[in-house]
Amino acid sequence: MSEEIENIQFELTDDLISQVELLIEASDDKALQKLLKDFHYADIAEILDELNLEEAVYIIKLLDSETTADILMELDEDNREKVLRNLSSKEIADEIGELDTDDAADIISELPESRKREVISHIEDEEHKAEIEELLAYDEDTAGGLMAKELVKVYETWTVAGCLRRIRGQAKEVTRVHSIYVVDKKDKLVGRLSLKDLIVAKSDQKIAELSNSSVDYVNVHDDAEDVAKIMQKYDLEAIPVVDDNHILLGRITIDDIVDVMKEEAEKDYQLAAGITADVEADDSIWELTKARLPWLLIGMVGGIGAASIIESFTGYMGDFIILLSFVPLIQATAGNVGVQSSAIVVQGLANDSIDGNVLKRLFKEFLLGLVNGLAIALIAIVITHFLFKTPYNVSLTIGLALIAVIIMAALIGTFVPIFLDKRGIDPAVATGPFITTSNDVFGILMYFLIAKLILGF
Amino acid sequence: MSEEIENIQFELTDDLISQVELLIEASDDKALQKLLKDFHYADIAEILDELNLEEAVYIIKLLDSETTADILMELDEDNREKVLRNLSSKEIADEIGELDTDDAADIISELPESRKREVISHIEDEEHKAEIEELLAYDEDTAGGLMAKELVKVYETWTVAGCLRRIRGQAKEVTRVHSIYVVDKKDKLVGRLSLKDLIVAKSDQKIAELSNSSVDYVNVHDDAEDVAKIMQKYDLEAIPVVDDNHILLGRITIDDIVDVMKEEAEKDYQLAAGITADVEADDSIWELTKARLPWLLIGMVGGIGAASIIESFTGYMGDFIILLSFVPLIQATAGNVGVQSSAIVVQGLANDSIDGNVLKRLFKEFLLGLVNGLAIALIAIVITHFLFKTPYNVSLTIGLALIAVIIMAALIGTFVPIFLDKRGIDPAVATGPFITTSNDVFGILMYFLIAKLILGF
Repeated sequence: MSEEIENIQFELTDDLISQVELLIEASDDKALQKLLKDFHYADIAEILDELNLEEAVYIIKLLDSETTADILMELDEDNREKVLRNLSSKEIADEIGELDTDDAADIISELPESRKREVISHIEDEEHKAEIEELLAYDEDTAGGLMAKELVKVYETWTVAGCLRRIRGQAKEVTRVHSIYVVDKKDKLVGRLSLKDLIVAKSDQKIAELSNSSVDYVNVHDDAEDVAKIMQKYDLEAIPVVDDNHILLGRITIDDIVDVMKEEAEKDYQLAAGITADVEADDSIWELTKARLPWLLIGMVGGIGAASIIESFTGYMGDFIILLSFVPLIQATAGNVGVQSSAIVVQGLANDSIDGNVLKRLFKEFLLGLVNGLAIALIAIVITHFLFKTPYNVSLTIGLALIAVIIMAALIGTFVPIFLDKRGIDPAVATGPFITTSNDVFGILMYFLIAKLILGF
Repeated sequence: MSEEIENIQFELTDDLISQVELLIEASDDKALQKLLKDFHYADIAEILDELNLEEAVYIIKLLDSETTADILMELDEDNREKVLRNLSSKEIADEIGELDTDDAADIISELPESRKREVISHIEDEEHKAEIEELLAYDEDTAGGLMAKELVKVYETWTVAGCLRRIRGQAKEVTRVHSIYVVDKKDKLVGRLSLKDLIVAKSDQKIAELSNSSVDYVNVHDDAEDVAKIMQKYDLEAIPVVDDNHILLGRITIDDIVDVMKEEAEKDYQLAAGITADVEADDSIWELTKARLPWLLIGMVGGIGAASIIESFTGYMGDFIILLSFVPLIQATAGNVGVQSSAIVVQGLANDSIDGNVLKRLFKEFLLGLVNGLAIALIAIVITHFLFKTPYNVSLTIGLALIAVIIMAALIGTFVPIFLDKRGIDPAVATGPFITTSNDVFGILMYFLIAKLILGF
């Protein structure tokens, strides 16, 4: 037996893919089934993501729906959509019959409106159907949109022995029993216990004695991100979901939360990098352009604004045309400082780790800007004076402008995300191109104003 | 009972903090204990993070070590370090006695070398001590650094009834029983089963019959990030860790992986924003400066480089001095495109979702740059010609330069992270200031070279 133990390291090789492709071409179903039998569904999904649509559909139709339902859940969203379009409503309903209610509802919600009802009508298990329809009614960004109906529920009046006997039935339907939820006769959540508690207890004890009444729960309408934060903070692996009357409706498990967290982190990262929408490196050029061009246009508006400012000053500059050479330095510094300041605030807001009031934070950024600004300015004055042989008053101008611009960029980068957050707008949009662009324009304007003041042109 | 049910929504108010502070000042231990008794340890940690050091230490010394050990784990790392400095080695050893081995090893590894041995020598439970010492030997970025020694282990020759009886003892030490690991007589991992399997089974069945031999596992020296990816891909909530001979050493649970993922995402985000090291908004100005100034200096080098380029061209430009006004446009566009391209590649590499070879990807970015570049260039030509009244050849220069710069920035932004990844360097360092700075310099150089070619100055 010890030799049978499987190694988890799955390697998706070109060999494997061409082997699968050859077998599909030869319609050698037996060999295909034998080959794929030992792979985890997540690995088969990886293989399918590499095949063309016809080949992927061939495999989905070949394997039994217990496996293919799980494979479907693991496919790239784009690929899943295409595969589903090639399955009949009856076939999709069969897949869905194998899935937990939360995954089933997720798949159905991705279908076009017209097919949703058709697929639902083909689901055979009436209870499963009703539960999925209930879940479809919740907003996907709420606890209701994340929860599954599958859970193990016991009444507080039961005994341990009776409880064990009865939950045997319930537990078969539940992939992982995290907690057993204890309810009163009206199905109100009153406590929880673990399988471990049950095993360790004596068989004639009453559930009410074992039940831990300090059970954590969330309301069905709570925001999904808040649920993620709560589960993370309290190290929970599952949390029950109740309605306004404390009636137990479902439960959310940690794997769903891991997905929420990952999506959130990726979204913030992409926004900071100036990419809208949820794109991946393998998306089409058209989709990537849609996600990237808008932000480039924002940057362009900034660039045109900067050009107007420079043009309006150039005429008066005379001998100080050398100032134009340092525009990129001013601009790059303003952009970098702005992104740094905003990123740290956005991350703090996402973690709820920002405390204190706005003024205190702005004052701190002011001091930080002053320290960084003095350091950068000093180096800039020395370099420009000795390397570029600029007169001392021009070097001074550049140095002072750098200090001013760094402080300004730090303040804008801090203020904007906090302001957006208070207005209920995702502060992550404030990082990246928005901050960079406004800092570019303000920074260059400030540079020339300071130059005009000092050099008097 | 149903009225007792606790709401998880904890609100950290100024009132609560001043209430705690007043009680500490009055040394009213009874009232403090009563007040804090009903709070979750994660909430008490939030309160402690708001108190000054003396107050925090007061509370840690007041509450029993079962609670304070958990509180310590939840404190901000900086605060934890300060609190630990104010506890004796004996006191720390008592806290550690209450923690699972993985958390205990984490705390000890944060201590200065000289205190480590002292604290370990004070741990009373010899088995716990030996296990912690074993864990301390592993690199913190490996499976060994993440795993805990606490797990439930049964021998394949046991019966269900015998197994249930014996694991009652083991299970008491394990906070959450995810899986029961089945080993042969040499302690080699041969399978697993769930508590659910055990409850559903008949009491005289042999463990070997129930055991699922397709158990996933990782090697103790595997990289922590790889373990995180595996657990996420296969939706695992715990994974056993074995040595090279398949001997079962420990297990890793999903909550530790959630932390790894979060840290990884935050690190990448900060690197993209030009912030080194792991800083938070509430860190000191000195620490924030250390994390931010280096990247500003890199940006500065780029700015100075750009200044040299501009200066060397300015002398010959004559009437084309208007070109200087559009330097910020060129620079901002190059920067934005570079960050977009690199961010999407870095994210793809982090998710292992990038396939195909480098040349194919570069060709795709080339096409993408061409599409975006044509769009941006067209708008720029129209705007400069009609708004800035630039001659058509200057507008054309700006447009062509934009196309060239966008393609160049897209290629650099794609190539550099892939190159770094192949050399085993974290590609996330390539986003943010590095890419922006090099694109600034190359972009401006390219702009003037194209101008020289077209305008012939």
